[in-house]
Amino acid sequence: MENCLVAQSGGPTSVINATLAGVIMGNQLNPIYDTVYGGLHGIEGILQEKFVDLTHMSEDENKVLRQTPSSALGSCRYKLKRENVADFEKLFTIFKKYNITCMFYIGGNDSMDTVYALSEYAKKNNIEGIQFVGCPKTVDNDLMMTDHCPGFASAAKVIATTQLHTWLDYNVYTRQEVFILETMGRDAGWLAASACVTGKVDLLVLPELPFDKEKFFAQVREIVASKNKCYIVISEGVKYADGTYLAAGESKNDLFGHAVLGGAGQTLKDMLLAAGVCERAKVQDMSTLQRCYAVSQSAVDVDESFRLGMSAHMRSMDKAFTGKMVGLVRVEGSEYDVEFKAFNASEVANHVKNFPKEWILDNYRGISDEAVAYIKPLIVGQPNILLDENGLPRYCAPFYHR
Amino acid sequence: MENCLVAQSGGPTSVINATLAGVIMGNQLNPIYDTVYGGLHGIEGILQEKFVDLTHMSEDENKVLRQTPSSALGSCRYKLKRENVADFEKLFTIFKKYNITCMFYIGGNDSMDTVYALSEYAKKNNIEGIQFVGCPKTVDNDLMMTDHCPGFASAAKVIATTQLHTWLDYNVYTRQEVFILETMGRDAGWLAASACVTGKVDLLVLPELPFDKEKFFAQVREIVASKNKCYIVISEGVKYADGTYLAAGESKNDLFGHAVLGGAGQTLKDMLLAAGVCERAKVQDMSTLQRCYAVSQSAVDVDESFRLGMSAHMRSMDKAFTGKMVGLVRVEGSEYDVEFKAFNASEVANHVKNFPKEWILDNYRGISDEAVAYIKPLIVGQPNILLDENGLPRYCAPFYHR
Repeated sequence: MENCLVAQSGGPTSVINATLAGVIMGNQLNPIYDTVYGGLHGIEGILQEKFVDLTHMSEDENKVLRQTPSSALGSCRYKLKRENVADFEKLFTIFKKYNITCMFYIGGNDSMDTVYALSEYAKKNNIEGIQFVGCPKTVDNDLMMTDHCPGFASAAKVIATTQLHTWLDYNVYTRQEVFILETMGRDAGWLAASACVTGKVDLLVLPELPFDKEKFFAQVREIVASKNKCYIVISEGVKYADGTYLAAGESKNDLFGHAVLGGAGQTLKDMLLAAGVCERAKVQDMSTLQRCYAVSQSAVDVDESFRLGMSAHMRSMDKAFTGKMVGLVRVEGSEYDVEFKAFNASEVANHVKNFPKEWILDNYRGISDEAVAYIKPLIVGQPNILLDENGLPRYCAPFYHR
Repeated sequence: MENCLVAQSGGPTSVINATLAGVIMGNQLNPIYDTVYGGLHGIEGILQEKFVDLTHMSEDENKVLRQTPSSALGSCRYKLKRENVADFEKLFTIFKKYNITCMFYIGGNDSMDTVYALSEYAKKNNIEGIQFVGCPKTVDNDLMMTDHCPGFASAAKVIATTQLHTWLDYNVYTRQEVFILETMGRDAGWLAASACVTGKVDLLVLPELPFDKEKFFAQVREIVASKNKCYIVISEGVKYADGTYLAAGESKNDLFGHAVLGGAGQTLKDMLLAAGVCERAKVQDMSTLQRCYAVSQSAVDVDESFRLGMSAHMRSMDKAFTGKMVGLVRVEGSEYDVEFKAFNASEVANHVKNFPKEWILDNYRGISDEAVAYIKPLIVGQPNILLDENGLPRYCAPFYHR
């Protein structure tokens, strides 16, 4: 009897459940494992043996799961540290107890480090018969190796749609208006940059370049002078040259030592008004909504995330397949297409893929055509969202609530 | 030769253009008017004779207009004051110059007052051959006489969907979490209340009842103690018993003497943390997005708004039809249905329809079943949104930019 375990970690996305659905569906198409266990709340719940049986999920529930945002198995911020040997020993005891021969971990940077650490530990301790496979997800799109990350495109689509629709809204009055859209992006500006695919963004402020207040204010002044309006997109993680965050007043650190950000848009608004750069400014902070407004999923994103889960499941038939992450490679050619490819989790863990500096236009004027061409094919297509009788999207009830 | 004029005023909605499309389509089905003029930026632009010709809009553009949020003709906050007789004289001179025999004004409270004032002025001055017809719109749903306002349901749907999806998101960690969703609603709590149709809201704070800090904090404490989470929805316009706004720190007045609000959610978060009621709280301020995220239009709302425009156009054949607003009457019975009915604009102007106090549950625990039954049928149905080749919704370019 061989079983597998699948779990989710880190910040949720609109399609992290599509990857979960892919693993489950993969095992229904080819039952490599007798039982597909879902581990609740990532490593945190696995250490407490909080498991659910996902083996026989119905076709309808699998479909609904794919359109359900957030992590249906729950998530965690628990950091598996290499020095905490007791955690590793406990985990491998639990894997043995449940006859788990493969663990699929759907997450970001830290989760790929967990996959790496677990496979490393097994190797060093000559523990055989257990594999660790990572499936990437992150709205930030900042993972190495993979062309893009499942979850990014759906968030990018929500942001681009919001940019377009708030642009239509902020223009209606003849009075002066400055609009500031704030997106997530601690270190990488992919999400903020994605707003530019609409062609309606005047100024873009990314964390990849130090923020030069006077230079930026001059740009706002110039644009307001020419058309009485200015649409600004800013990433939460924007910093000054000295490394302090624009939104520093509100920053503190989370358990991983990452700064908890938010408020860059409001800070910028206050600065612009105080300096008399403009008379009025409005802020739209995308906040949590950008990563979970799943009725605006990108069809490409859902499809790729689902197939990535299946790909991970199928590849695990190879007993030597461990310490790997399944990623996406963009195929050369005029039509957008991807292939699935395995990378070493060690090459992904604890690195960040920034938005390329050569794609950033001078004077905060947005992104290059090449950058737009990279983003556009990802947000294409509208999945057929199943609604309930009240017009709200159907969703899969969280497994940790059942 | 008889022409008509249609214009938009006040804050935009996701479906204010559907009513415009209805007026235009009405005249194509029954060409009462030789030319359908669109007045740009409401009364403000009409006074400057800023007109566009909408008579021969194509079927495709009409369809796209219905899914375009915000006011395609532009809007204004210009208040037509009865004592400014020169404005009236100028307007009637312009109406005569362009052979305008009917003006349709799509707007809220202040716009219905404009319809009332213009019809009153014509009557008092024995000016014949010109009619004034109002079409309601407002996300706030606070207009008298009509069962509900075009624009409310689509905003309610965006809010309810966001509530559901952020609820799925905020639940994923085992740690304590308080989530605060802030909606628009200066005086009336309809939008905040609409979040409750999901059944996932723990506490609801409406402007209809004075905010009792200690009583509310006790509720938050109780809920957090029982399940470690608490989902709060708050309206921007919440006030203390003494009439000061919760978000008073940021309040100032607009041209109409209305308080400019925002920040009730952030204020509440700061208060909860400072008082040690909870350890963590996150805020999602719906801001502009709630009134313009048109890919989440309610099909019922689009359809009613469009037909309301047609109804207003058709009724204007009756030369005595002036100083009126076309509204919606809900038909009794088990199946949701509406009829269109004309009301005197004077009965709508400068009044506010609050969320009924008898629909508010004690201790901030949400809304009654009757209230849910009122809201639910309005948000039903997903229009087939036409997308461009990039996966973004097609939109009608603002007429004031052409």
